Amino acid sequence: MNNSFYFESKTELYFGSDYLQEVGKILKSKSAKKVLIVIGMNSVIKSGLLDRVIKSLASEGIEFEILKGIRANPTFEKVNEGLEIVNKNQIDYLLPIGGGSVIDTAKCIAVNYYYPGDIKDINYHLAKPTKALPIGVILTISAAGSELSNSCVIQDDEDKTKSGFNSDLVRPQFVIEDPSLTFSVNKEQTAYGIVDIMMHSLERYFSPSEENELADDFALAVIKNVKEAGIVAYFEPNDYKSRAKLMLDSSLSHNGLTSIGKNYSMPVHQLEHALSGTFPNIAHGLGLAILFPSWAKYYKKYDVSKFARLGKVVFDVKDDNEEIAATKAIEELQKYFDKLNLPRTLKEVGVKKEDINKLVEIVSRKGTRVIKHPYEDMDEKVMREIFTSCLG
Amino acid sequence: MNNSFYFESKTELYFGSDYLQEVGKILKSKSAKKVLIVIGMNSVIKSGLLDRVIKSLASEGIEFEILKGIRANPTFEKVNEGLEIVNKNQIDYLLPIGGGSVIDTAKCIAVNYYYPGDIKDINYHLAKPTKALPIGVILTISAAGSELSNSCVIQDDEDKTKSGFNSDLVRPQFVIEDPSLTFSVNKEQTAYGIVDIMMHSLERYFSPSEENELADDFALAVIKNVKEAGIVAYFEPNDYKSRAKLMLDSSLSHNGLTSIGKNYSMPVHQLEHALSGTFPNIAHGLGLAILFPSWAKYYKKYDVSKFARLGKVVFDVKDDNEEIAATKAIEELQKYFDKLNLPRTLKEVGVKKEDINKLVEIVSRKGTRVIKHPYEDMDEKVMREIFTSCLG
Repeated sequence: MNNSFYFESKTELYFGSDYLQEVGKILKSKSAKKVLIVIGMNSVIKSGLLDRVIKSLASEGIEFEILKGIRANPTFEKVNEGLEIVNKNQIDYLLPIGGGSVIDTAKCIAVNYYYPGDIKDINYHLAKPTKALPIGVILTISAAGSELSNSCVIQDDEDKTKSGFNSDLVRPQFVIEDPSLTFSVNKEQTAYGIVDIMMHSLERYFSPSEENELADDFALAVIKNVKEAGIVAYFEPNDYKSRAKLMLDSSLSHNGLTSIGKNYSMPVHQLEHALSGTFPNIAHGLGLAILFPSWAKYYKKYDVSKFARLGKVVFDVKDDNEEIAATKAIEELQKYFDKLNLPRTLKEVGVKKEDINKLVEIVSRKGTRVIKHPYEDMDEKVMREIFTSCLG
Repeated sequence: MNNSFYFESKTELYFGSDYLQEVGKILKSKSAKKVLIVIGMNSVIKSGLLDRVIKSLASEGIEFEILKGIRANPTFEKVNEGLEIVNKNQIDYLLPIGGGSVIDTAKCIAVNYYYPGDIKDINYHLAKPTKALPIGVILTISAAGSELSNSCVIQDDEDKTKSGFNSDLVRPQFVIEDPSLTFSVNKEQTAYGIVDIMMHSLERYFSPSEENELADDFALAVIKNVKEAGIVAYFEPNDYKSRAKLMLDSSLSHNGLTSIGKNYSMPVHQLEHALSGTFPNIAHGLGLAILFPSWAKYYKKYDVSKFARLGKVVFDVKDDNEEIAATKAIEELQKYFDKLNLPRTLKEVGVKKEDINKLVEIVSRKGTRVIKHPYEDMDEKVMREIFTSCLG
């Protein structure tokens, strides 16, 4: 635990099926008058969810505009489009309905509404956000955890890079989480979500800590919970209990709780952003599932007992020999991903040996940066080694 | 996990030694103009802490009044005295410096400022709070967890009963937690604090749950962390790391996280409030330490595997036989309390056999209520049995 740190997680969590029809009331209690609803493609419309939300807003006299067509790996173009609607219509509250893409789009709109410079500046860390429009979320997929997090990742289509910023200003004020809305999430997306949720706590867990660190036990609790609920949800998509667990895990895996009091970095996320940025057919969760085991095999030597403990707590590995237990922990994780029908290699998702240079170039920003990691900084050589070992 | 629930924990946590001198700035960012500082006896003055706080307020031009002399088991008289100061001086922010007693006094002032009826009504559940003055906390003891909780317990000196209410309105807006402020907490108070922190998660843990319930793993994580850090802090009072862990545990054990998504009740707290209410020389944590093992022995039969799991995770009990492991878990907890030099029996703290009737009368409100518990409601018979088995 660090000697000094700041922590907050202010988002109000309305969990279950009772709250969706209350969204108008909740927004009214936040003094919202005119809302920008942010949605993805058409599923929110087709399922009737948008109509239900609009009805609830209308009953409280809350006006709205709609920004639609947000895709996975959301773009600055859509942020711009949203900003124009916000400015033209005196929007005072943002209401993304969906998952990470729509929430992050809303977050980027929220801070840029108060920032006069280029909309990419804040994501590129050229400017700090000073103020943000308030955000409320209706969550429809358990994955990114953006609903309780302070982070926002946007893709630059010009050069295929993703960039992100963290600011407590963009933590949503509230989120409505109705697990039954996720029944219709298909097997692939469910699997990617499971990986993404796990990874937010795994990367925090593998950021160095001391003995008896509370954050690490919280992280293991979330990882174990995701693992057990995930496999049920994958095979029984309408199982309320496991969908509910995944949804809560999604939020608590990325709000800072599983790293409370300690520093953390997300090296595997850095590698993955280059991957899915370059190959848009590779989902973020899929990329993480392929990359993490290779990262783990490379870094295992720096903290064998931590890997062993992951095996013991989450995968019921019984070996007393830590070296063996650590190896088994990674194997068990891969076997778990196998059960979710996730490919193990980059080759299976169409990445070729000759693509590695490009990926290393993106992550290392043409050799100008290393990914800091307390175990061992990840330079071009290490990046290349990890990408290559995923190739298959 | 319940199908439906609401959760929030909005308190900003400023942790470490860097923030105390910032209290003026933090208060200013919350638009505080005139603050009521609430303190206990003289230690905050003697240690120079009060002076440091006042200096920080002065540097931001924030005015203040002081309410002092809050004792353990705080009273409605002091709440009244505080309310008078608030009304007379246009106080707009409350700043308790201390632990549960001063924080709960501030909470009771906060809601009664907006309530025109009798100041006991809200605590007696005769009225609901509708609004509250904002509260910020400077924590000086790791114990009650009131700094992040939504609960407030006040003693009625007229009939020696304690009464409490829960409301998210009284969650402090911020807390400054500097572990070095707790170096001077003596051995006894440190031990009582350890028990109190443990018990907030233990009572939540033993509220029924389903398999793979995230809240239960969080609870076990906190209990284990307290157990390990506590014994170090008890014998090495100036050990920053263990004091820091205890402080964080104190806050996360009672903010709702370790029961997130499930219902919980606190039957042992109910018994204890009668005990320390009647015998003011018995500290709350001391009372809990004596009562919990008897409660556990009585209720163990209803969920042997849960007791066994406590033993396995927290006390490293290896037995596969759950009945044996459950019994050992309770024994290990008692042995741990022994190490903290806590008495095991009511006799040791001056309670006699003939006092039991009085205690049962208070908890059962002269036989008019049972303490609801999903395992088995606690009626007069059960209360008597548990008190009697603690007698020694």
